[in-house]
Amino acid sequence: MTEPGREAHFVQSLERGLAVIRAFDANHPELTLSEVARICDLTRAAARRFLLTLADLGYVRTDGRLFSLTPRVLELGYAYLSSISLPEVAEPHLERLVAQVRESSSVCVLDGDDVVYVARVPTSRIMTVAINVGTRFPAHATSMGRVLLSHLTDEQMDSYLSRAKLNRLTARTITTTDGLRAELRRVRAQGYAIVDQELEEGLRSVAAPIRDRTGAVVAAANISVHASRNSVESIRRDLLPHLLATVAQINADLHIASPRSHRTGA
Amino acid sequence: MTEPGREAHFVQSLERGLAVIRAFDANHPELTLSEVARICDLTRAAARRFLLTLADLGYVRTDGRLFSLTPRVLELGYAYLSSISLPEVAEPHLERLVAQVRESSSVCVLDGDDVVYVARVPTSRIMTVAINVGTRFPAHATSMGRVLLSHLTDEQMDSYLSRAKLNRLTARTITTTDGLRAELRRVRAQGYAIVDQELEEGLRSVAAPIRDRTGAVVAAANISVHASRNSVESIRRDLLPHLLATVAQINADLHIASPRSHRTGA
Repeated sequence: MTEPGREAHFVQSLERGLAVIRAFDANHPELTLSEVARICDLTRAAARRFLLTLADLGYVRTDGRLFSLTPRVLELGYAYLSSISLPEVAEPHLERLVAQVRESSSVCVLDGDDVVYVARVPTSRIMTVAINVGTRFPAHATSMGRVLLSHLTDEQMDSYLSRAKLNRLTARTITTTDGLRAELRRVRAQGYAIVDQELEEGLRSVAAPIRDRTGAVVAAANISVHASRNSVESIRRDLLPHLLATVAQINADLHIASPRSHRTGA
Repeated sequence: MTEPGREAHFVQSLERGLAVIRAFDANHPELTLSEVARICDLTRAAARRFLLTLADLGYVRTDGRLFSLTPRVLELGYAYLSSISLPEVAEPHLERLVAQVRESSSVCVLDGDDVVYVARVPTSRIMTVAINVGTRFPAHATSMGRVLLSHLTDEQMDSYLSRAKLNRLTARTITTTDGLRAELRRVRAQGYAIVDQELEEGLRSVAAPIRDRTGAVVAAANISVHASRNSVESIRRDLLPHLLATVAQINADLHIASPRSHRTGA
């Protein structure tokens, strides 16, 4: 079950089976046996064993030639979502916020160098960015990422800044280590982050930290808007107070949730 | 890798690893090694191998004693969602519908005897039922389930009716095979389903079919409301026309999507 360089405990069949699930995506909703073998770097015989096992377990279906995932795969992602109480606690508050400000609001946690959406309430104004629970963005270019990064320990932040790729996503993206470190210091001091078209042209957002009962920052909530409708100044003046009030309510609810159930991914 | 009674292709380590992921839920957000072994019916040594492998792959984290899932697990569920274009196509239309009628709207597919949510736009009026993408309900007691069941082939419907548990969820739930078969015939003929407090007291909903370019019913969209705010008659008169218009738009968009990308779970 192990290969050279792997720990003795490592179960390679599990790694490979999960890789087969992840071979399917928007560009590959249906795959042949050969395509799965190629994408996952498996022999055809191995790809066949994993696909048929996933079919036995109800995660994959086939017409004999093409394979595709079934909705049962959602249960795996759902295992994570239901294991954290955060989305359930946050959603009613996000819904009230969205009703007040008529803009979309989301909650993210930090996973490695990315933010991952765990709750989202869209408004009927369609954003240019398609976002779902599970969507990831590079933390450095997002308001929620800035909030979460700003509360890393010094050691964690040094490690992040030394390894992270600060890709230029728009002309405005902060891409230098020194620039980002200075911005994170400012975000931490002021208690919120505003990002102005650094992730995508035309998109501005403001985020604030969500804290567990120990005071640790475990997630961030945001409001995202079209740049054409909201200046940075109107975001600060009109939207930020609503966001801070919402986050305070989420924090209060989290603090009365059971201590074992409010740990999250940050 | 196989056990007696299993096909020769069956990769038991994959089954067991996926079971370890699913051991975590709202009641078990953090588990010890021994708890995972007990829930998954594994030896401690086996549970340890799977947990440490999942930790190596970034799906599980541990403080040395307690294990929990990471947001990376969402990528597995996300593999399914991004492999079907339906949620992406449907969501802008659901958002417009929710803005019009001020009630929540969702899209479900059929998986076995359950409906599974693949898209949802809540309104700011909080429902008594907490629903997320991935949430499942028994098809027989929901409007989307009735729509999806009503378009099964005769053979599939006989199989469903002979095996499904038609549990009584409220005093109004249809629980007899004959009663459900008659209702499904009616739903198919009229082109929509209204369910009046059969899933939960106080909850009414109306659903209509979503069809792919071949005309096959692949999903259903609904509007759900509090019974205190909407009579069955007002649902039919005031909400159904908006839902049917929305579904027509989703169908039109699906028909221009690429033929390989609009296959869904129904």
